[in-house]
Parts: sequence; C-alpha cells; structure tokens
Amino acid sequence: MASKPSIPKGTRDFSPEEMLRREFIFDTIRQVFRLYGYQPIETPALENLSTLLGKYGEEGDKLLFRILNSGDFFSVLTDDELLKREPGKISARICEKGLRYDLTVPFARYVVQHREEIVFPFKRYQIQPVWRADRPQKGRYREFFQCDVDVIGSDSLLNEYELVKIIDDIFSKLNITSVIKINNRKILSGIAQIAGETEKITDITVAIDKIDKIGMEAVIEELKAKDVTVSTINKLKPALDIRGSTHEKLNKLEKILSPSEIGLKGVSELRTLFGYIESSPLNCTVELDLTLARGLDYYTGAIIEVKSEDVNLGSICGGGRYDNLAGIFGMEGVSGVGVSFGADRIYDVLYQLNKFTEINAQVKSVMIVNFGEAELKYCLTILETLHSSGIGAEIYPEPAKMKKQLAYADAKMIPFVIIAGGDEIKNNEVTVKNMLTGEQKKIGLGELKSFFR
Amino acid sequence: MASKPSIPKGTRDFSPEEMLRREFIFDTIRQVFRLYGYQPIETPALENLSTLLGKYGEEGDKLLFRILNSGDFFSVLTDDELLKREPGKISARICEKGLRYDLTVPFARYVVQHREEIVFPFKRYQIQPVWRADRPQKGRYREFFQCDVDVIGSDSLLNEYELVKIIDDIFSKLNITSVIKINNRKILSGIAQIAGETEKITDITVAIDKIDKIGMEAVIEELKAKDVTVSTINKLKPALDIRGSTHEKLNKLEKILSPSEIGLKGVSELRTLFGYIESSPLNCTVELDLTLARGLDYYTGAIIEVKSEDVNLGSICGGGRYDNLAGIFGMEGVSGVGVSFGADRIYDVLYQLNKFTEINAQVKSVMIVNFGEAELKYCLTILETLHSSGIGAEIYPEPAKMKKQLAYADAKMIPFVIIAGGDEIKNNEVTVKNMLTGEQKKIGLGELKSFFR
Repeated sequence: MASKPSIPKGTRDFSPEEMLRREFIFDTIRQVFRLYGYQPIETPALENLSTLLGKYGEEGDKLLFRILNSGDFFSVLTDDELLKREPGKISARICEKGLRYDLTVPFARYVVQHREEIVFPFKRYQIQPVWRADRPQKGRYREFFQCDVDVIGSDSLLNEYELVKIIDDIFSKLNITSVIKINNRKILSGIAQIAGETEKITDITVAIDKIDKIGMEAVIEELKAKDVTVSTINKLKPALDIRGSTHEKLNKLEKILSPSEIGLKGVSELRTLFGYIESSPLNCTVELDLTLARGLDYYTGAIIEVKSEDVNLGSICGGGRYDNLAGIFGMEGVSGVGVSFGADRIYDVLYQLNKFTEINAQVKSVMIVNFGEAELKYCLTILETLHSSGIGAEIYPEPAKMKKQLAYADAKMIPFVIIAGGDEIKNNEVTVKNMLTGEQKKIGLGELKSFFR
Repeated sequence: MASKPSIPKGTRDFSPEEMLRREFIFDTIRQVFRLYGYQPIETPALENLSTLLGKYGEEGDKLLFRILNSGDFFSVLTDDELLKREPGKISARICEKGLRYDLTVPFARYVVQHREEIVFPFKRYQIQPVWRADRPQKGRYREFFQCDVDVIGSDSLLNEYELVKIIDDIFSKLNITSVIKINNRKILSGIAQIAGETEKITDITVAIDKIDKIGMEAVIEELKAKDVTVSTINKLKPALDIRGSTHEKLNKLEKILSPSEIGLKGVSELRTLFGYIESSPLNCTVELDLTLARGLDYYTGAIIEVKSEDVNLGSICGGGRYDNLAGIFGMEGVSGVGVSFGADRIYDVLYQLNKFTEINAQVKSVMIVNFGEAELKYCLTILETLHSSGIGAEIYPEPAKMKKQLAYADAKMIPFVIIAGGDEIKNNEVTVKNMLTGEQKKIGLGELKSFFR
C-alpha cells in the first residue's frame, strides 16, 4: 500500500467549509470593485522569467519558482558549464518560465502589451494566486491569493479617494473594524531632503517604517548604525514626531518642509485627499501616519495601509501611487495607483473574530431521504420541484438506514430533511424535519416551494 | 527602451470583456453544482511530483511542468551523473514539485489525505486551472480551466442520473443545444469478452472510439493492423452496428452479450439509468452510443460525453464511473463517478454561436461627467447615492473635455452618463444621457435610485 499522500510545504487544500468562507470574502471584494467601475482581468500563472527577474530585488529573484524547460534541457550547456555547478547561471539557462510572484508586475506587463486595446484611465481588478518560495511559517504561504485593484493612466487624487472609499466599503461589508493609515512618499522625500540626506532616503524610510513596531529610540539607534549623523537625526525627529489632528499635522509639516518643493507637493496632495475624505462619513478610521513607508521601490505619491483594530495580524490591505511602473517594460510616464487586499490575512482576522458562523447559517438546502425504488419516483418529482425553484436539494443516493442518512445531512449542515414514505405519498404530502430544532411538520406538495422560500 | 513584453506560448491574458463572459460560464456551472448539493474544494497548483508521476501514462509524464528545486539544486548530483546528461533521470532529482495536470488525481489525493474529515458519499466540485506542456495549437492551451464534479463513496446509479440532470441543466442555462452520449465500460468489456480478445480490449476500444470520426471501414482496417483477427472483427461488428431506439439497442445487446456476465451487468446498469432519465423531460438529447469509449484507463461503468449540436468542436463535457481511483493512493474499494466541463471549449461554442452579446448588455452602470472642483461635491454625493443603492457608478477622474469623457464611457460600454453642471445643481437635478439611444432626460435627485433600478 502506498504511503499517505501529502502536498508541498507551504501549500494548502481548502475544504468545502473553508471554500464557502473564502468565497464570501472574494465575492464581497469583487462586488465592491465592480460597484466602483473596476473591470476584471486575469493573466497566466506562467510568465517568462525575463518579465519577472530583476523586478523584486535580489532577494525576490531567489524566491521565484522556476519551471524546468521541457525536453532535453541540458543540451544548451557545455560540460564545463555543468561542472562549474553555478545554480544561478544554470537555472537561467534551463528555465525560461516562472510562476507569477505578485499581480503588479504582470499588470504592468499586461498594460504595455495591450496598450493599443486599452481605454485609459484603465480601472482593473485582478484576483488570483501568486507563488513565492519563501520559508513557510504561520500565516505565510508559498501559494496565496492577492486581490489587486488599480487605476492606471490618471494622476487625479480622486483615484486615491476612490480607493479609500473602496477599502471602507469592503471592510464594512466584511464587518472588520479597521484603521486606514495614509502617508505620502513625497513627504518622506521632503524630510530626507531637509535632513540633507536624499541619497540615504531608503535607509531612512526603512527605519521610519519600524517606528510603529520598535519605537523611536530603537529607530534612532538603527539610523546611527547606518551612518546617518546625529545632526541629521535631530532634523528628522520633529517631522516624524508631529502630533495633533490631521490638519494640525499638515500645517506643522508645511512649515518644516517649506524649503523642499517636493515635500510641499506631498503636503498639498494629502490636504486635497483628506479634504475629499472628510466630505463623506466613513466607517473606518482614517489617519495620517508619517511613519508609514511600505517599501520605497516604486511608490511616488500616496501610501496606504490598513489594519484591523481588533486583531493584530499586520497589514490586511496596502498600496499606493507609482508614477512609472509600466516604464520597466518601456512605456514611460503612465501614473497609476492601487491597493492589494490580502485574502488570507482577512480570512485569519474573520476567523479569530469568530465571524464566520453567520455565513454558514445562510446556506439553505434540503436532503430527501431515500427509501428505495418504490418511493423513488415520488422523491425525484419533489427534487425536480425544488431545483426548478432554485432551492438547493439532493436525494441520498442509497436506500441506507435512516440514521445514516440523517447523520449525512447533519455533517453537511443541511438544515432541512424531507421524509416521503408510503403514508406521505398516499396523502400527496411530505414530512419536513428541521435538523436544528428536530421539529417535524407535514406539508402538502403544493406548499413545497413557498415553504422553502 | 525594453522590447515589447510577451507571455509564454500557449498561455493567455483575459481582457475585461473576456472575463465577464468567462465568469458567466463559471457562475452558471457553479450555481447548478450547488443546486444539486455539491460542495467546492480547491487544491494547490503545486503538487509533489510523486503524486503526479505515473498517473497519466508515459506521454502524460512528459507533459508535466516541473518546478526546479530552490537553492543549490545540483548538489545532489555527482559529476558523472551530470555528464551522462539524462534529462529524465536528472529532472527527477532536481525537481520535487510539478504543476497539476488535471483535477482528478489531486481529488483522489485529497480524498485519501482527508479521509478522516470527509463524510461519504462526498459530493464535490472543483473549478481551477490545470497545466500541460502540450504543443500549443488552435483551441488547445498550456494553461486552461477544468470544472469537475464528482461523487465518491456511492455506487448508486442515481449519481449517474444526477450528473445527466446537471449536464442538462447547465447547457440549458448556457443556451447550448447539446447531445449527451452515454455508454458503459462493462458493455465494452463484454464485447471484447465475447470476441475472445479480452487482452486486446485497449486496442479494440481505442479503435471503436474512432468510428464516429473515421467510419466503420477505417476502424476495421485499424483493428486488422493491430492483429485483431477477421473472425474477431466479425464478432465485434454486430454489437457495434446495432440500431434502433435505446430500448431496442439494449434488448439486442442483451442477446449478443448473454454469454458475458460483465456485459449483462452493463446492459442492466444502462437500463436502470435510462429508466431514470426517461422519468423526467430533458432539454438535451440523450443517446446510447456503443462506440463511445473515452480512454479506458480508469473508467469501469458509465461513460458520458457531451457535444454541441450546432458547433462541431469536439467534446464540451465528459466523464464516467471509476471504481478504484483512490486506490492509486492506497485507499481501496471506493467507487466514484464524475464529469468535467471544458470551460474553454464552452467559451468557443458560445462565441461561435454569437451568444455573448446579450451578456454584455446586462451590465448596468453609470459614469458621472467630471466638470472640475466647483461641481465635484455635488457629483460625489450623486456617486454615493448610487453606490449605496448597489448601482455600479464612477466619476471620470479628471475634468477632461466632455468628448473624451463620453468616449471613455462608450468604450467601456457604460449605458448611462450623468451630466451635472451649474444648471443642474441649481435645480437639484441631473441630466441622464442614454449612451445607446443618445436621448437625454432631466431627473430630480430624489428620483435617481428608482430611475436606475
């Protein structure tokens, strides 16, 4: 006998129960995306490695899953090359394709490849799995879903506002109390500029990004370790330590950043965005967070991050504006902004908050007990009636013992069982058993549809 | 500037228009599966190669996409092994994982792995992409979707009947006139038995399977080439050449197969199944087709195949009963039956029949013209009102020229545009432009919801 089969580390099977919960999340997200005029696209799981390599940094390149070329993949390599055993060089020769690592780079590739067919501004969403050869750990998987929503080809701040509304709408519908944190990359650039350290901006923002986790003092130590001078740190501190309402913060920043053109542009963008946000009530809390940095590489304007207020599981949604993403594929000057919802993290938040029970209870369905050939025709007619009214229904496939059949309905959380034996058939009726309460009730065939509606 | 990016051969991007059409197909299939009590599962794209290898024949093994191991993948190989350059042996050492090739083997693996949690009979559906390193050609892709529905753990023929009903329901809802062809593997075994060639059953059924395409005479030539004797062929012919109604065919078969126990079992199973089928009216044509074989490897009972009556694109759905699929993973004696819907072929049929136009027309949405900051607040309130009523709506993100904004709505097939400038704001109303007819109409803010419902 074969040993029990298994699946690769960091991957998961989803049971029917998990699937229904996941679909509730995906459906909610999808419906809101559509409500705001975003349209779906899908891209292949397999991309050419030339599309993927060099887009996620050196570390990212290592985390790509590569597909071995078909056929005689070694024929391109000389004996010398083989014996040098350089994994990086050899894998580049024997693999042409890889699995997509995120949805952003495929989207940029899609926009450039299909630029002639696309009407800009292009508002698209994309809900698909991505793969990363990361070390698997709790809450981190090698195959997981991203739900991305982006608009490309417009630099209006109404787009940022729309994304905030979408976030608010989705988390309200999912019943997750959230805080939306907003910053602007131009402000971070401005701060680096007035500190006189524009070339150290990456180190500075990476450090700033940690204030929330490790505190200001530890961040200062880290900056010192990166050779940022004490005088620079002293210039940075007041900008990061600003308190007060959003408008008080923006007013103070405006003064601090007055020598920096780009910094002032950032302040002005945030003022417009918060102006829009304040024009209509939101369920989420929205706050300006100057310590929010979110990896610098392609963000150029707004930076957005969302956390649950009730469960501390890190970011459940995030994104920002990028001014030149399509440029990596040769299409310059197209500005875009987007956010990505982490379906797996959202699942974990809802699970920890015990908010899934209600969803299961919503599934209405019926099982008809199978008594055998004699009663079958009557039962099949009932089944047909229920199906034609759109009511989920099944007949137990074998005339098994009643106890076994009821146990099946119970395990499948089917709320109603129909019993139609000789007595019921004689009277043109059925017995309906409510599996939750145990109550039984006789109803006529004519009442079937209305009863289950 | 980088060269125009592309995607791997045999893969596809799906545009918003294609996505909406595909979702219509998937949603229809999914809803019917659910209506009949089937539950969703998903399995990872990555499976261990030990799960996949040897399940699809030698040819299938070659068509698996293999994932190169991470890190120093060569360290397991000696210099001698490297220089022998045997692709088959080396790929087995440097790749542990592969992409799923179909949904049937992962389902069998799932059932065995989760046998303790599953309540049998287990009715599951699974809609996911699969990957095959096939030579790409028209209508054949390297990444494509399968929609599988199976019940495992019950040998009742009610399951076969249920699948026929599901097929009928799905193709009726998709508006595809179809013919469902049914055969039984036991009858094919019986025919081989009475022909005295049980060990040639594979050659015989492969040949039989072609009668539809190449005709009886060519099939006879093929059988001769495979060393099937003329006397055997003469015994086979009458069984395959039976004509008449289903019941006439079954009666004649019963006589021909009377020496074969398994053959008679097949006749009896088909009689029961057709008995169920005749008990309720179907939209599809159902016929007994003794020439239907569908690859023998795991089918043991019913064989099912569906074709469109209007477009000749081959099978759009197919499957059958298998008595020992889970046995390949060490779980013996579990019978199952299922069919797989080919979403890509169904798409092509609907496309050729020009049945997608109606779907597009169903999408109701609104674009609000952007006049600039002065009118923005009024427009955002309208947007909010529409969204809160569940009406898809967007405001053009920039105050661009009217012509450009209307062209955007047109290209996106948005049927209604709202114009709200100074005049409209003064009177608390909006102008609604019907993009199809060009008609314009003024309505009050209070009427917005009811107008778009």
